[in-house]
Amino acid sequence: MQRVSYPSFRTVLGEHEIVRVAGANHALGGLLAEEAGFQAVWSSSLEVSASRGVPDASILSMAEYLESAANIQKVLRIPVVADCDTGYGGNLNVAHMVHEFEDAGITAVCIEDKLFPKMNSFVAGGQTLLDTAEFASKIVTAKRAQSTDDMFVIARTEALISGLDVAAALERCRAYADSGADAVLVHSKAKSRDQVLGFLEGWDFRCPVVIVPTTYPDWHIDEIKAAGVSVVIYANQGLRATVTALRDTYRAVYRHGDSTVVEDSIASVQDIFDLQRLPEWQKLDA
Amino acid sequence: MQRVSYPSFRTVLGEHEIVRVAGANHALGGLLAEEAGFQAVWSSSLEVSASRGVPDASILSMAEYLESAANIQKVLRIPVVADCDTGYGGNLNVAHMVHEFEDAGITAVCIEDKLFPKMNSFVAGGQTLLDTAEFASKIVTAKRAQSTDDMFVIARTEALISGLDVAAALERCRAYADSGADAVLVHSKAKSRDQVLGFLEGWDFRCPVVIVPTTYPDWHIDEIKAAGVSVVIYANQGLRATVTALRDTYRAVYRHGDSTVVEDSIASVQDIFDLQRLPEWQKLDA
Amino acid sequence: MQRVSYPSFRTVLGEHEIVRVAGANHALGGLLAEEAGFQAVWSSSLEVSASRGVPDASILSMAEYLESAANIQKVLRIPVVADCDTGYGGNLNVAHMVHEFEDAGITAVCIEDKLFPKMNSFVAGGQTLLDTAEFASKIVTAKRAQSTDDMFVIARTEALISGLDVAAALERCRAYADSGADAVLVHSKAKSRDQVLGFLEGWDFRCPVVIVPTTYPDWHIDEIKAAGVSVVIYANQGLRATVTALRDTYRAVYRHGDSTVVEDSIASVQDIFDLQRLPEWQKLDA
Amino acid sequence: MQRVSYPSFRTVLGEHEIVRVAGANHALGGLLAEEAGFQAVWSSSLEVSASRGVPDASILSMAEYLESAANIQKVLRIPVVADCDTGYGGNLNVAHMVHEFEDAGITAVCIEDKLFPKMNSFVAGGQTLLDTAEFASKIVTAKRAQSTDDMFVIARTEALISGLDVAAALERCRAYADSGADAVLVHSKAKSRDQVLGFLEGWDFRCPVVIVPTTYPDWHIDEIKAAGVSVVIYANQGLRATVTALRDTYRAVYRHGDSTVVEDSIASVQDIFDLQRLPEWQKLDA
Repeated sequence: MQRVSYPSFRTVLGEHEIVRVAGANHALGGLLAEEAGFQAVWSSSLEVSASRGVPDASILSMAEYLESAANIQKVLRIPVVADCDTGYGGNLNVAHMVHEFEDAGITAVCIEDKLFPKMNSFVAGGQTLLDTAEFASKIVTAKRAQSTDDMFVIARTEALISGLDVAAALERCRAYADSGADAVLVHSKAKSRDQVLGFLEGWDFRCPVVIVPTTYPDWHIDEIKAAGVSVVIYANQGLRATVTALRDTYRAVYRHGDSTVVEDSIASVQDIFDLQRLPEWQKLDA
Repeated sequence: MQRVSYPSFRTVLGEHEIVRVAGANHALGGLLAEEAGFQAVWSSSLEVSASRGVPDASILSMAEYLESAANIQKVLRIPVVADCDTGYGGNLNVAHMVHEFEDAGITAVCIEDKLFPKMNSFVAGGQTLLDTAEFASKIVTAKRAQSTDDMFVIARTEALISGLDVAAALERCRAYADSGADAVLVHSKAKSRDQVLGFLEGWDFRCPVVIVPTTYPDWHIDEIKAAGVSVVIYANQGLRATVTALRDTYRAVYRHGDSTVVEDSIASVQDIFDLQRLPEWQKLDA
Repeated sequence: MQRVSYPSFRTVLGEHEIVRVAGANHALGGLLAEEAGFQAVWSSSLEVSASRGVPDASILSMAEYLESAANIQKVLRIPVVADCDTGYGGNLNVAHMVHEFEDAGITAVCIEDKLFPKMNSFVAGGQTLLDTAEFASKIVTAKRAQSTDDMFVIARTEALISGLDVAAALERCRAYADSGADAVLVHSKAKSRDQVLGFLEGWDFRCPVVIVPTTYPDWHIDEIKAAGVSVVIYANQGLRATVTALRDTYRAVYRHGDSTVVEDSIASVQDIFDLQRLPEWQKLDA
Repeated sequence: MQRVSYPSFRTVLGEHEIVRVAGANHALGGLLAEEAGFQAVWSSSLEVSASRGVPDASILSMAEYLESAANIQKVLRIPVVADCDTGYGGNLNVAHMVHEFEDAGITAVCIEDKLFPKMNSFVAGGQTLLDTAEFASKIVTAKRAQSTDDMFVIARTEALISGLDVAAALERCRAYADSGADAVLVHSKAKSRDQVLGFLEGWDFRCPVVIVPTTYPDWHIDEIKAAGVSVVIYANQGLRATVTALRDTYRAVYRHGDSTVVEDSIASVQDIFDLQRLPEWQKLDA
């Protein structure tokens, strides 16, 4: 019984006009995203830190984020894209990051142009950007650090998050693409898609564009594709659904005094076994 | 900003006529169980292995189960009860287990009388028991290994799971209690509470009894208490609810083509921030 | 700055009439073994457990042994051979082990035919063997679990360690080779090479032979090669040299009252920097 | 068989006029330092990173340093002082660090006033200091984060390392002591003790002083004590002795062609077993 195999993110991107990616914080979430049809899984910094009960503010070490991404990848047939925050420090950290994620079989990483330690992008304040040249140097470092052709490095600009305008975001992304980034991610927390649309209008597509429509959830995949986006990440809906499900379930069991109240609305133990691929494992002892 | 503090499981048991415990596989789940009112959290072997995408069959190492239990405990105001399978091997493993879980601040562990490697109790087959004296020796070893008065060792019999009768379960539990177990857990996968009720009728309560009513979910907490049970573990409902929530959410977003379809039924990003205690952490930079 | 690259153990074996392997418990030890000329490094269970201050008796989890082997491999230009004890349990554990070590870039693993939990081979007692067919099944499982052609599985018999004779060792090794083992390791703690020589005389070389001459250290590499051995592991001399060096150094500094007493006999801080490849790393910030 | 117990570093400091501390990177090293008479062990960032084959430049995560410190403490009867570099980032990282090291049973941590990511102090260049007020804020944060009275926070100034003078070092240390530091560490890489002596002459001893005489190894413990120092750390002699021992041993075995050449100068396997406390562990199976 071998590990399942998976294509690199680069391969997946080559095979799809648009790649849809779902956030997860554990292997089980990744399996369910794969089951739903997503082409890749986002090992989300927000999801991983929330699952540990700490803010998404560079509090956990690279070691924990790496472990989470690696554990997700191990059981999937689709590639993981690892949310690597700022690259965990300076250039040396970025090189080490690429070494370690590549060792773990991760074929795509994303780093952002904020200062370390970063604060989650949806938090007011604390969104200071790194100098463009310094971040470009991180991209150069990342690309030189990879040992395989597979490794795909996404440069994420937080220009719009930090209050700068679309022109600034474009300028930064051009510099990052010219430094070797395989794609750029333009992040926005505006209530509409307009900022990102503005970016796309100004972008010369020297490399593909990635977006994260958390605050403009009504942007349909067909429209996103038509706008020229190559990758869309639904970054945290799984986590948020988990919180609601756990909150409701625990409350119902506690208040009702027994668990029949939830029994019909939750997966069966047999469902769990199937997700664990138990029948395949059991054959090893036959 | 200090860590939250928590009482030992022994203290909690002394303060409640019946202790209700909910299963979790990460700190966030533990926080939501605490929020719902549970008095302790079960760091479930089934939940942890499923979250990693592998069967609950002693495939993950003690290291992974320990890490999971420790990470849950770190952010809770209620104690964790660690599901420690068979104790991960023989007597030396049990001593090492107690050392390590105690080091991690865990105040209650549960070991079961099956052979290592074990198979999940709800799986048909593979439920071979260890000799009673050998398991009693594990209990003696565990109790001698603890450094604090707090550590609470639960001896779980899988006699009913393995097909033996109530008399066999009683005989084993008496031996375990006499070897120093702080409580016994009598596990059953019968479709009704009858086996466990039979056990309770025959038990002389030389130590408290723990139950896990997964397959007899209609047993109300008031009836459980009246039957003389001290601790009830809702071991996997959280995991099963998570699977349903993730499956539904990922499918809906993928099929609908945007995430507005789920937006109203999932927690907000602000809810996540609150669970991460972000406002408290932010004060450190003020 | 990329990771250094390394050949698989299978490749190395194909290129050398005899492969010399040195034990280590951390990357630095591996680097020094490589520097000395060894063709591979043994990630030794005795060394790793001793470095953690616990017996070599399956007390540490697979997770810790894996981490140690992986950390050594990351910085070497020669392959690591991982000492995987009994495979950490039954067939499911063996499959998981192969998955995990392969994920970590390890190209050779060694498992032995003792019961889990095992005791170090040089300890009197506790050397009970697994049934031949059961261990052969572990070998079959290991070979089916690998995803790459590289992975090299060494079957180690403890027949001689457990008090059985050469005929029994031969019978077991034939069964293991026929089950797919890439090599067999015949271990002996006799004070002379005679047992192993006896084995080699009876062996039909259906696969290569590995030896560990801890208790017959006078067996010269040329004689070992002439006897038909393909791989020789100097399993623990590094650890034992470390103990002596640390004991002498700490004592000297403590008793003398300053560290001039050791200054001339220990490596310089600059030596450490060179082993860390500091100049290469520093270029990343230029 | 319980864990060994150990006093807090604060207790040890109260009981000794001067505390001698030896660097180590694994539990075995810690055990040998304890055996030699040292009163505490320094979990050295240089040693840990070197043992992993990477520079001492904030490349490894806090997770790895924590794991190393924790693993050393687990088997010792003396306390570990954890070298925590810059605190791994900003104030939030420092609070998290205190939580995690305290959880792991560590009773003393040391943080230094350089920018993250730091470079080892003996490397030319890259020694930029954090603003005094910002580092003082880290000390305040660390002290507020601790849950026990035990935790001892050492503020290390790199003023002299970065090229500033003794007056600057004094000014910084006064600010750190006034912010709650339990001790100050004044680090110097001068070839003589003069800088540190100058510091001691100007210091009003509002808190104890720690030194690391790596580059002035001839300073005798009696003179150090007479100068008013409370804690002296022999930070890396163990690592450097290990490098020499491994280099010599591996070379000798490889060149000589057998291991008799080293057999008489290295510890026996039985010595290893004793350090592992094997006889005590074996009693668990009696």
